[in-house]
Amino acid sequence: MANTVKYELSEDRMPRQWYNLAADLPEPLAPPLHPGTHQPIGPEALEPLFPMALIAQEVSTERHIEIPEPVRDIYRQWRPTPLYRARRLERFLDTPARIYYKYEGVSPAGSHKPNTAIPQAFYNKEAGITRIVTETGAGQWGSSLALAGAMFGIEVDVYMVKVSFRQKPYRRAMMEAYGARCVASPSEETEIGRKILAEHPDSNGSLGIAISEAVEQAAQRDDTKYALGSVLNHVLLHQTVIGQEAMAQMEMAGDYPDIVVGCTGGGSNFAGIAFPYLGAKLREGRDLYIKACEPAACPTLTRGKYAYDFGDTGGSTPLMKMHTLGSSFMPPGFHAGGLRYHGMAPMISHIKELGLIDAVAYQQLECFKAGVDFARVEGILPAPEATHAVKGAVDEALKCKEAGTAKVILFNLCGHGHFDMQAYTDYFAGKLTDVTYDENELQTALGQLPSVAAE
Amino acid sequence: MANTVKYELSEDRMPRQWYNLAADLPEPLAPPLHPGTHQPIGPEALEPLFPMALIAQEVSTERHIEIPEPVRDIYRQWRPTPLYRARRLERFLDTPARIYYKYEGVSPAGSHKPNTAIPQAFYNKEAGITRIVTETGAGQWGSSLALAGAMFGIEVDVYMVKVSFRQKPYRRAMMEAYGARCVASPSEETEIGRKILAEHPDSNGSLGIAISEAVEQAAQRDDTKYALGSVLNHVLLHQTVIGQEAMAQMEMAGDYPDIVVGCTGGGSNFAGIAFPYLGAKLREGRDLYIKACEPAACPTLTRGKYAYDFGDTGGSTPLMKMHTLGSSFMPPGFHAGGLRYHGMAPMISHIKELGLIDAVAYQQLECFKAGVDFARVEGILPAPEATHAVKGAVDEALKCKEAGTAKVILFNLCGHGHFDMQAYTDYFAGKLTDVTYDENELQTALGQLPSVAAE
Repeated sequence: MANTVKYELSEDRMPRQWYNLAADLPEPLAPPLHPGTHQPIGPEALEPLFPMALIAQEVSTERHIEIPEPVRDIYRQWRPTPLYRARRLERFLDTPARIYYKYEGVSPAGSHKPNTAIPQAFYNKEAGITRIVTETGAGQWGSSLALAGAMFGIEVDVYMVKVSFRQKPYRRAMMEAYGARCVASPSEETEIGRKILAEHPDSNGSLGIAISEAVEQAAQRDDTKYALGSVLNHVLLHQTVIGQEAMAQMEMAGDYPDIVVGCTGGGSNFAGIAFPYLGAKLREGRDLYIKACEPAACPTLTRGKYAYDFGDTGGSTPLMKMHTLGSSFMPPGFHAGGLRYHGMAPMISHIKELGLIDAVAYQQLECFKAGVDFARVEGILPAPEATHAVKGAVDEALKCKEAGTAKVILFNLCGHGHFDMQAYTDYFAGKLTDVTYDENELQTALGQLPSVAAE
Repeated sequence: MANTVKYELSEDRMPRQWYNLAADLPEPLAPPLHPGTHQPIGPEALEPLFPMALIAQEVSTERHIEIPEPVRDIYRQWRPTPLYRARRLERFLDTPARIYYKYEGVSPAGSHKPNTAIPQAFYNKEAGITRIVTETGAGQWGSSLALAGAMFGIEVDVYMVKVSFRQKPYRRAMMEAYGARCVASPSEETEIGRKILAEHPDSNGSLGIAISEAVEQAAQRDDTKYALGSVLNHVLLHQTVIGQEAMAQMEMAGDYPDIVVGCTGGGSNFAGIAFPYLGAKLREGRDLYIKACEPAACPTLTRGKYAYDFGDTGGSTPLMKMHTLGSSFMPPGFHAGGLRYHGMAPMISHIKELGLIDAVAYQQLECFKAGVDFARVEGILPAPEATHAVKGAVDEALKCKEAGTAKVILFNLCGHGHFDMQAYTDYFAGKLTDVTYDENELQTALGQLPSVAAE
């Protein structure tokens, strides 16, 4: 009986450099704009928020950026992560396709997020920063940054969307276990928090508000910087260890993907698996279909507008050109909390516009079904976010079955679902339904996009 | 800055055989007795409960038992597991000791339990069994057997202690995700369940009751067998992949342990790390201190009586000679749910009596503190059970500091705490206290031990 096979990369083959897609893009990214003047900003404008080393990465067009040895020392605790040939899933689907998945759930935080949390903490430490402030929605990013802070002896304050803070006490406990402070947002600790609470004392918060609070805190103190868990170029850059390892492992397996699949919230795990392959495609003209899988309830790439927008609710971040549902858009409740952001990484938005990748939106019920099928045949229970990638891969495998073609499909299983058992509990209890955004609300949010003359 | 180091064993060095301590014991185990006649029973008496292949392992004195290839095929998905040199923990403790830990949390169930669930499901499948019934307390074993059932296409029914069933819906969801059926015990499905419910309609259940229910179900149908997640010889046997891998990895590290530490509930993860080393000690006379860490609230090895007792509450299992608090003993509530069993594996009880291992009981607060310290320096959040081993190792390292001796300490980190965040939430909220068993209750339970003439 053919069984699922693991391709384990030896530690000495762990990547020494991050791969920067900016070096291979046929057209450069649109520049970020100042939130007030709408003029392009230089790297120095980001200095209140990030250490210079990260800003340099944010704007770099170098193809390869060295991974510092202290970062590799910590990566090494769980990297290289395994890549599997999903033979049991193939048999279950009765597909001629060969399905591979890279598994990031073996990190101490259970997801891919530490891949960027660790270097972000490292560069802040190098710059003499003693405190990092961030926001978190579902809590995966907050707990990963808390872990990274513990590794480098940096204080971490996390503004957690209030509704999640209440509903997900376990994520908060994880952050506290790593020594971070976790605050419900909106809070009384920031000007914008107090303003929102004065107007809406019962505010549930939002990712956009939490970002505004964290940014405000970072801008106020010299010893404090801000950190973001997705969206920005340097964050996507750090995740490319995933795809680089996958390339080496696929070579061990003697296969090259025809199709690469990832789920997208802000875009970082998708970039991690896809960018190294996309770079090879751009340089070598290799045929490759790349598919981003997003939730139908927050369909940034498939329903958003490609336009300049703020990264936060308060309008304090630079304007970035990206697929956006509008910074005031509030997605309905659904269980893949990591995929609820109103925008999309500018670099992913850019390659979508260039026709280099495709995007598909899935409903949560079909994703949970795919996730449960996957757990039963492959043994790993995926995080609700990751079930979108599973669904995307399964659909491609079923197309292969129909067409009788033996394509090679690679997807990123970005995290395990052990923290998300409430979602599975609700799913099995029949309490989950498909949820779609409100079209009127979307149009209203899109109508409030800042009008930028440069567009 | 010296960092924690991972010793990764390549897949081709994964053990091909389980190690059987029975081959090296200076004295044989006391035989199990029939629950009614109190006469020694032969292997055939276990046939209603287990497939013959497992019974043969239960009574075997062969030193090495081949691991079937289909079992290795599934082990391979997460084995060999990593072994770490805890350099950051050493620095944190400022100890000359060299601390190593084997990490079993990388399995799909997050603990060591699949090491035996997989072969148990395999041998049942080989024997034509289509359904396995088991009990679970906290749920780690139930979800691991559910996983194994999914891998081999066997139906799994889990009787889960009612109080846990209510308090831990996430564990139940995990079992259901793997396709198992999870029933609150006592249930209406068994004679003993109905009897208990008739007398105590509000019964919270206990592990002993759940075992009685599962055993009753298994004995009734030819297509159904029973499975146990710890205690029995064959279960301990399967876990020896842990220690065998650790020996190879310690060799890579160029070290040999002076001290081996594990936590004990039924004893299986402790046996996994310790037995291969104990065998080497018995054969080669090598000096080695082996330490079992148990909860002060259920102190089987340190306060139990070494006597014949039932494995369950209903008195339906064979009598086993073991350290026991009495099968009617109910431990007070504490958070390491996997360490709540009234008895101890007969083989571990036996070597304790022979003076080959030591045992220490710890309170939960000191264990949680050690667990949180560990998470902050090593990055991995331990399961509450595993914090007992962490505490045991830390104590030994601090003794080294005091004495100025550089001993080599190896412990088993048997699982991650991602399913146990309620415990950490309570800990951080200051809601946890130390709990000790009731001495009167213990004496009562010990007074009810079956009187066995053979003793």
